[in-house]
Amino acid sequence: MTRGTGGEIPESRHGWGRVAVDMSSDERYLELKKRLATIHDLSKVSALLSWDQSVMMPPGGAAARAEQMATMGRMAHELFTAPEVGRLLDELRPFEASLPYDSDEASLIRVTRADYEKAVNVPASLRGEMTRVASLARNAWADARANKDFARFLPYLQQTLDLKKRYIDCFPPAAEPYDILLDDFERGMPTADVRGLFSSLKAAIVPLTARVANRADAVDDRVLYGDFPVDRQRAFCLSVLRRFGFSDAQWRLDPTAHPFASNTCITDIRLTTRYYPDFIAPSVFGSMHECGHGLYEQGVSLSLERTPLARGASLGLHESQSRLWENIVGRSREAWRCFLPELQAAFPQMADVDLETFYRAINKVQPGFIRVEADELTYSLHVILRFELEQEMLAGTVRLEDLPEIWNARMKAYLGVDVPDDAQGVLQDVHWSLGYVGYFPTYVIGSVVSAQIWEKARAAMPDLPAQFAHGEFTALREWLREHLHQHGRKFTPRETLKKVVGTDRIDVGPYVQYLTTKFSEIYALAPARTAS
Amino acid sequence: MTRGTGGEIPESRHGWGRVAVDMSSDERYLELKKRLATIHDLSKVSALLSWDQSVMMPPGGAAARAEQMATMGRMAHELFTAPEVGRLLDELRPFEASLPYDSDEASLIRVTRADYEKAVNVPASLRGEMTRVASLARNAWADARANKDFARFLPYLQQTLDLKKRYIDCFPPAAEPYDILLDDFERGMPTADVRGLFSSLKAAIVPLTARVANRADAVDDRVLYGDFPVDRQRAFCLSVLRRFGFSDAQWRLDPTAHPFASNTCITDIRLTTRYYPDFIAPSVFGSMHECGHGLYEQGVSLSLERTPLARGASLGLHESQSRLWENIVGRSREAWRCFLPELQAAFPQMADVDLETFYRAINKVQPGFIRVEADELTYSLHVILRFELEQEMLAGTVRLEDLPEIWNARMKAYLGVDVPDDAQGVLQDVHWSLGYVGYFPTYVIGSVVSAQIWEKARAAMPDLPAQFAHGEFTALREWLREHLHQHGRKFTPRETLKKVVGTDRIDVGPYVQYLTTKFSEIYALAPARTAS
Repeated sequence: MTRGTGGEIPESRHGWGRVAVDMSSDERYLELKKRLATIHDLSKVSALLSWDQSVMMPPGGAAARAEQMATMGRMAHELFTAPEVGRLLDELRPFEASLPYDSDEASLIRVTRADYEKAVNVPASLRGEMTRVASLARNAWADARANKDFARFLPYLQQTLDLKKRYIDCFPPAAEPYDILLDDFERGMPTADVRGLFSSLKAAIVPLTARVANRADAVDDRVLYGDFPVDRQRAFCLSVLRRFGFSDAQWRLDPTAHPFASNTCITDIRLTTRYYPDFIAPSVFGSMHECGHGLYEQGVSLSLERTPLARGASLGLHESQSRLWENIVGRSREAWRCFLPELQAAFPQMADVDLETFYRAINKVQPGFIRVEADELTYSLHVILRFELEQEMLAGTVRLEDLPEIWNARMKAYLGVDVPDDAQGVLQDVHWSLGYVGYFPTYVIGSVVSAQIWEKARAAMPDLPAQFAHGEFTALREWLREHLHQHGRKFTPRETLKKVVGTDRIDVGPYVQYLTTKFSEIYALAPARTAS
Repeated sequence: MTRGTGGEIPESRHGWGRVAVDMSSDERYLELKKRLATIHDLSKVSALLSWDQSVMMPPGGAAARAEQMATMGRMAHELFTAPEVGRLLDELRPFEASLPYDSDEASLIRVTRADYEKAVNVPASLRGEMTRVASLARNAWADARANKDFARFLPYLQQTLDLKKRYIDCFPPAAEPYDILLDDFERGMPTADVRGLFSSLKAAIVPLTARVANRADAVDDRVLYGDFPVDRQRAFCLSVLRRFGFSDAQWRLDPTAHPFASNTCITDIRLTTRYYPDFIAPSVFGSMHECGHGLYEQGVSLSLERTPLARGASLGLHESQSRLWENIVGRSREAWRCFLPELQAAFPQMADVDLETFYRAINKVQPGFIRVEADELTYSLHVILRFELEQEMLAGTVRLEDLPEIWNARMKAYLGVDVPDDAQGVLQDVHWSLGYVGYFPTYVIGSVVSAQIWEKARAAMPDLPAQFAHGEFTALREWLREHLHQHGRKFTPRETLKKVVGTDRIDVGPYVQYLTTKFSEIYALAPARTAS
């Protein structure tokens, strides 16, 4: 990689080749790729540190782990924002233009340039301040939540929002300030589009939820509660996951308090789930959900390994995969034609449960105050509420001290529930304390997109439900890999969506249709009104 | 940390403060410590990557893990050998001289300087070559061992030795070349001293082993074999380890194929062990052994955290701790007065085993060909054989192709056994393939030192054995912490030894005495001849 004699810039200190002015394009590309590979290693090591912290680490490791994580993050950021990276990206423009847009090489340069331009806009001092405040705010939030006392969190929320405004000011003005925050989580998605989507969604879901609530006693989920020994839950979850694509050669499943999916590379996927010894649903559907995330990461083309393209295209697209496998597949009647007999074999007390009773139980709608415990129908309303409040906080149209009151009033309006205290209200989520403003919408974008993808997949393979009934999920997984997973992060979320469903437009239609059909049937609602 | 206006050298790219010529000594010290903390983070992250690879990682993670490990190692090495580190160490000489020798600050500067001077002697190109050959040699060794074919490993062993000679040439000449290799594992220990030790040891152990072999049927260890369900073995091991100092707040115990101890910081210690469902000894004594290593690392003063002093003083001293807990404590009659009833409660088939039978069983001497399976008495002979051969290989006084034959002849002479094939002979250990020449002696140094330390501890606390019989190990652990563990790597191995036993001389006397007394009693040998 080292060439040339004259015109070299000083060698940086990471065993990189020199970045010489007379390098060829191939050499520049390899030099960029080498730097990105090292940065990718750091990010995957961080993922392992975090996985270990949640799943394996004894409490005594906490203080050192925080330092180790900070060191990894700092080094990755410094290596990525080095001026040589910017220079290589600039010099590689002609090389990029000479290659097909879809090629791995052009995509790596294009996506890296977009990442780089975002990263260098933010001064190190502001990044440091954001990290510092997030660390304090996280503790203040935990304390406030434990004490059901929003006032303890209020000053930190104020600081967080102030920093978010300074962050927004680092970038060229957007149509609206929230666009810049949302872009960190769902690149290229304008707030206006989300607003439009959510408005249509709310218009459909609020009345549907109200109608379902009127027939609440049509569904009984008592069969899901009882004596479910954890070791047998784990064995059952694994038997389900193996049908979805889990294998011991490339996956793990471990217990944890707050389930997540992680990985150390494309071929080492780590799922976590949570077991309640008296309630079977969380471990089963939680495993399916995380498996959806895992299948996406594991489906990325191996040609993208050790590059920043070796992950999902966006949080929304990622969530589309977890929701698809958890809800559309995992809570379908067809899948349980195969799984229910296996569940009954593992838990003899279920022997007399019939498929219809079970299917209705796992799809029971029950409006509540906690987002992460929400059912498939009401989940979106929790997110929409947060999306609306985030914009109002940023615009200054709500006073932060009034937030609890406003929160509770909207919960009553959207979900018909009375929030008992702030811990179960405005303080329930960790996101804002970490500075994640603009993150929540991706959860619902995922649900919406999952229905678009499902519609497309089913049109291509009409017998998918019949396959599920026979325990066959390979065709769906391979279709998803071919149309979505393999691309990793080569394309923007919209470009990626277009490759899967043929349009780059997120459309709530299929999702509203799916929810309406499903819950109208389960709750025996009159079909005409909601399907219009 | 940043001061000064003029005279600055260019800022390096790791968020370090600048190293300015007019920094104060305090500032320079803090700057050095900050750099070392980052390097320490990288090394502890490497330890976690390695632990995870052996204990948790699905096979699919292997290729990426190798890259991640290489990245961590490369960055740590580059950060450490940066010229700024050398300059800081130079400029800190007056500061160091102004502080007590024993202070954390003077020790950190002194030890870091010694490390630095060793590290910068070796050119990056040679380091790269050593890494590359080790990786190839490791595979060739595995292949050769699997096929019982030394010839497949021979060319790689030759390359490894050639590189070792080039490595030796990087340093100022020592009394003998082997000194330089040994120094990497046991700093400051001359080969001549080891030779002297081993010669005395061999003179005592070879005849003792022969006398024991004549009475081989005096000990029967059949009680250790039978039905030992793994979950109950684990529970029993944990109950033993908790008495030694294990706690869930700061420790883990996991199963693995090749047991080891590791840690991510002083307060997160990870032990591993191996369970055989039909043989109780390996998991129990293996756990005790690794616990000895863990107690050393966990006993290091917290004031040394995130510095290169936060570990044991040498491999030999480390091994002294594992051997002490495994053999001198763990295979003692007194400890089993407490543990045997607990073992019998866990495994009812042991109900009728009396203490004497059990004590003799766990101390059975059985000369064999495999080092890692050797008993306490014959273990040293395996190591002495390797130490002798390493020097001869380096001096060129043996031809490498004759190694298998020489190996087998010496095994017959030292241990009286016939080696059936090279896999169970010269190819049994991985060390040489990794370039670890000079490592083996530390195993026996550890055994020898463990007896010196035990003699000293027992002189200070004569009732230690009585405490063991009551399941009390706290006094021994705390004594070791105070006299050895807390110092970490502040002092040289000899200085450290002096702090524990009052002399910096390694003395085989106590170890020979210990072995002679113990095995003469167990095998009912005439006492006079061997105790002279």
